[in-house]
Amino acid sequence: MLFHARMRVHLPHDLDQDAADRLKEQERQRAQELQRDGRWRHLWRVAGEYANISVFDVDSPDELHRLISQLPLFPYMDVEVTPLARHPSAISDDAVSDEPGS
Amino acid sequence: MLFHARMRVHLPHDLDQDAADRLKEQERQRAQELQRDGRWRHLWRVAGEYANISVFDVDSPDELHRLISQLPLFPYMDVEVTPLARHPSAISDDAVSDEPGS
Amino acid sequence: MLFHARMRVHLPHDLDQDAADRLKEQERQRAQELQRDGRWRHLWRVAGEYANISVFDVDSPDELHRLISQLPLFPYMDVEVTPLARHPSAISDDAVSDEPGS
Amino acid sequence: MLFHARMRVHLPHDLDQDAADRLKEQERQRAQELQRDGRWRHLWRVAGEYANISVFDVDSPDELHRLISQLPLFPYMDVEVTPLARHPSAISDDAVSDEPGS
Amino acid sequence: MLFHARMRVHLPHDLDQDAADRLKEQERQRAQELQRDGRWRHLWRVAGEYANISVFDVDSPDELHRLISQLPLFPYMDVEVTPLARHPSAISDDAVSDEPGS
Amino acid sequence: MLFHARMRVHLPHDLDQDAADRLKEQERQRAQELQRDGRWRHLWRVAGEYANISVFDVDSPDELHRLISQLPLFPYMDVEVTPLARHPSAISDDAVSDEPGS
Amino acid sequence: MLFHARMRVHLPHDLDQDAADRLKEQERQRAQELQRDGRWRHLWRVAGEYANISVFDVDSPDELHRLISQLPLFPYMDVEVTPLARHPSAISDDAVSDEPGS
Amino acid sequence: MLFHARMRVHLPHDLDQDAADRLKEQERQRAQELQRDGRWRHLWRVAGEYANISVFDVDSPDELHRLISQLPLFPYMDVEVTPLARHPSAISDDAVSDEPGS
Amino acid sequence: MLFHARMRVHLPHDLDQDAADRLKEQERQRAQELQRDGRWRHLWRVAGEYANISVFDVDSPDELHRLISQLPLFPYMDVEVTPLARHPSAISDDAVSDEPGS
Amino acid sequence: MLFHARMRVHLPHDLDQDAADRLKEQERQRAQELQRDGRWRHLWRVAGEYANISVFDVDSPDELHRLISQLPLFPYMDVEVTPLARHPSAISDDAVSDEPGS
Repeated sequence: MLFHARMRVHLPHDLDQDAADRLKEQERQRAQELQRDGRWRHLWRVAGEYANISVFDVDSPDELHRLISQLPLFPYMDVEVTPLARHPSAISDDAVSDEPGS
Repeated sequence: MLFHARMRVHLPHDLDQDAADRLKEQERQRAQELQRDGRWRHLWRVAGEYANISVFDVDSPDELHRLISQLPLFPYMDVEVTPLARHPSAISDDAVSDEPGS
Repeated sequence: MLFHARMRVHLPHDLDQDAADRLKEQERQRAQELQRDGRWRHLWRVAGEYANISVFDVDSPDELHRLISQLPLFPYMDVEVTPLARHPSAISDDAVSDEPGS
Repeated sequence: MLFHARMRVHLPHDLDQDAADRLKEQERQRAQELQRDGRWRHLWRVAGEYANISVFDVDSPDELHRLISQLPLFPYMDVEVTPLARHPSAISDDAVSDEPGS
Repeated sequence: MLFHARMRVHLPHDLDQDAADRLKEQERQRAQELQRDGRWRHLWRVAGEYANISVFDVDSPDELHRLISQLPLFPYMDVEVTPLARHPSAISDDAVSDEPGS
Repeated sequence: MLFHARMRVHLPHDLDQDAADRLKEQERQRAQELQRDGRWRHLWRVAGEYANISVFDVDSPDELHRLISQLPLFPYMDVEVTPLARHPSAISDDAVSDEPGS
Repeated sequence: MLFHARMRVHLPHDLDQDAADRLKEQERQRAQELQRDGRWRHLWRVAGEYANISVFDVDSPDELHRLISQLPLFPYMDVEVTPLARHPSAISDDAVSDEPGS
Repeated sequence: MLFHARMRVHLPHDLDQDAADRLKEQERQRAQELQRDGRWRHLWRVAGEYANISVFDVDSPDELHRLISQLPLFPYMDVEVTPLARHPSAISDDAVSDEPGS
Repeated sequence: MLFHARMRVHLPHDLDQDAADRLKEQERQRAQELQRDGRWRHLWRVAGEYANISVFDVDSPDELHRLISQLPLFPYMDVEVTPLARHPSAISDDAVSDEPGS
Repeated sequence: MLFHARMRVHLPHDLDQDAADRLKEQERQRAQELQRDGRWRHLWRVAGEYANISVFDVDSPDELHRLISQLPLFPYMDVEVTPLARHPSAISDDAVSDEPGS
């Protein structure tokens, strides 16, 4: 099932630059891993902000929380989650989880 | 290019039922037409609300405005648009418009 | 899985009294039906407001949307949905759906 | 009587990791203690956020304040309390405090 | 126990003047009745607005909801309720309900 | 005349514990002094928050500002003031300042 | 004493034009009367809105409420009141009400 | 001098279609007149909304108010005005009103 | 021309006390200077807050920005500016700048 | 195509003064560079705030994000972007990008 998330990152100004770079690199790796296994279905940058809009395809809110709360940048994020349903006028199965494992 | 839109519909309570049904049917047809030609790329229902979250793939803000403002339910909608950019950690070309016809 | 919903009802002032009474009675019957089959797990009145706080136990956001959008008072409601996950400090299986039929 | 609370935790970024871990462990123990004695009736995680939604069953707002304000993480929480009443369409005594000790 | 309420009245502009006057007179009578029996402990006008700030002394959120939702002007009110506890620096028993008649 | 105030305290996380305790004790003494001389007429704790709701009985906004801005915790408070008038349905002289000294 | 008020007028779209004109003329006369007797000390238009920012010089919040709530356009106004005190850096007695007639 | 304005139009749903068309045509003519004489310097559509973002070049807030409040659609607009100053990093005289005709 | 400003000061908790006192004294001197030359026409304290409401009489938004942004406490202020126009019901020339030097 | 951006700068109070000056000088240089090549089409100061309102002329949301996110002060900015379309009543090609390179 699909969940929409808007994530805004606020890195503290006094965070060590190396630590910040490490966090961002870990975040990037984790994000790509979750995209490859199909659970982070869409990942867009909000133009002009340090923020993203994402769609996750998971089995439950529990799995969603596990994925998001284990992201390396989670302690610095404001996250707002919206559950998505199939739209009656949608022509594709975009809101349906039919990949193996989801 | 991609634009994210959240659209909330408020039908007036005293709208004639037939008129409302006609509007909704016209909206459905137009939404499917725009999905088929690739410009209304994603269309999800916000669970529990008379609202949708959409992603449009258009050539410009002008084209986006034309599409949205000509929707049959537009006079009854609150719309909030967010321009999307490619995310540096995205693994697909999800944010790129390279399909024929878009 | 569990979804939290806050629902605020705004009946139009010029709604016919009989129609309003019929809607409320239908809403009551539907709410009790959904409670009995285990999908409307909790239903509380917000003290001092024409509003409720509810917890639904459904199989998906799709099912949640179907339940809420078919409520007789849905056209007059503002609804805000929050997906719930199991809390690591919870001692019961309160957030788990294991009753028959849910 | 029942009170609904939404609690959002903001740990300061420069909090010592050991101190944070100790606080969280103390919070977990206190939360479970209060669940076992029936006063913290429901405890859910808000999916995707460091936040919970809870329902407390206490004798008064005074008792509620004592419970919440003595939580180890209270200094780092934003809390919003909503008093709950029995809903006229509720079929269970969910909003009634009939366990011993509450 | 004490509950703080802020109530804002919005009379519809097309409400019949006589009906409005009757509602206000009924509201006045009910408010005075509840003040005399000690349950509507404080009633102040917010200067410059058609709104009041009140403190109720009731046995439960259920009783509070019954009192407020049966006010003649309730269908036209936005109400926000805040539960009150005894303040540790308070010198009187202002937050305690043990006076005769309350 | 009466003024309603909602005061929310945010102590900085890195404030020295002794300094914080001293401030709170000074605040308590000052609050009790002002209650005894009749100017801090009501003082309630907002259940679940480090906040209070108060009613002051003073001669002018100037006096109100002097009282509030000299509170030991003032630098850490967000304060919102609402002037109160006598409500036409009030049965007591609750909104009238007739005690000596006010 | 001085009170700052921001008043936004929302005339209903279906109000009879003559009635609207009469209300506005009555409002104008009353506003000028109150300016002449010194109680409506300042009256400015918010540029670009059907709104004003005003400063009243009255004896109490009771008098303020009486003045505002008896304005002909009061049923169509959203009003927000802020009590003003003398600023320690002010060089004039602008915040003091001791001029004859005010 | 320059003022930025965001104007959102809400036409009432029961406005007669002919009346609406006449208003829009009058609005269009007035907007073009003001653009031609240099006082409505920029006029953009907010993509996806019945709203515009504008920059006016006028001699005073009085003139600004006169222009906006006399627009045919003004009774149906929410307007938010922001005064603009020259930016120290601006390379053009974009914020200066000294061109002939503006 | 007149501009209304609401300024809220947030001094950082770890600001050196002497530095804070110096800033406040400089702010006081500058505020009085600007009042004496007629450009800071009104300066009121918001009762109960570390904030002021002011009216400036300047030649342009540029001059307004220069005055405000050079205030010693500017780096610690949230400022909200509203341009003022003459109100059609105003009886004085309060909104007109005709003093020498303004 | 055009994008409107409102950017508010919050420099941390403990930022080294030299570092702050360097950042501002780099920001100024970059802003002028982008104005000269036609991509930062308008840059205005919001009067009374450390903020600007800008209009960018870029080829895509991707280019917009690149420009904004590489500004030296970006880590200290809150940015809100609004895509602009041509207004049907606009008389100039203000919303059209016809300079070489855009």
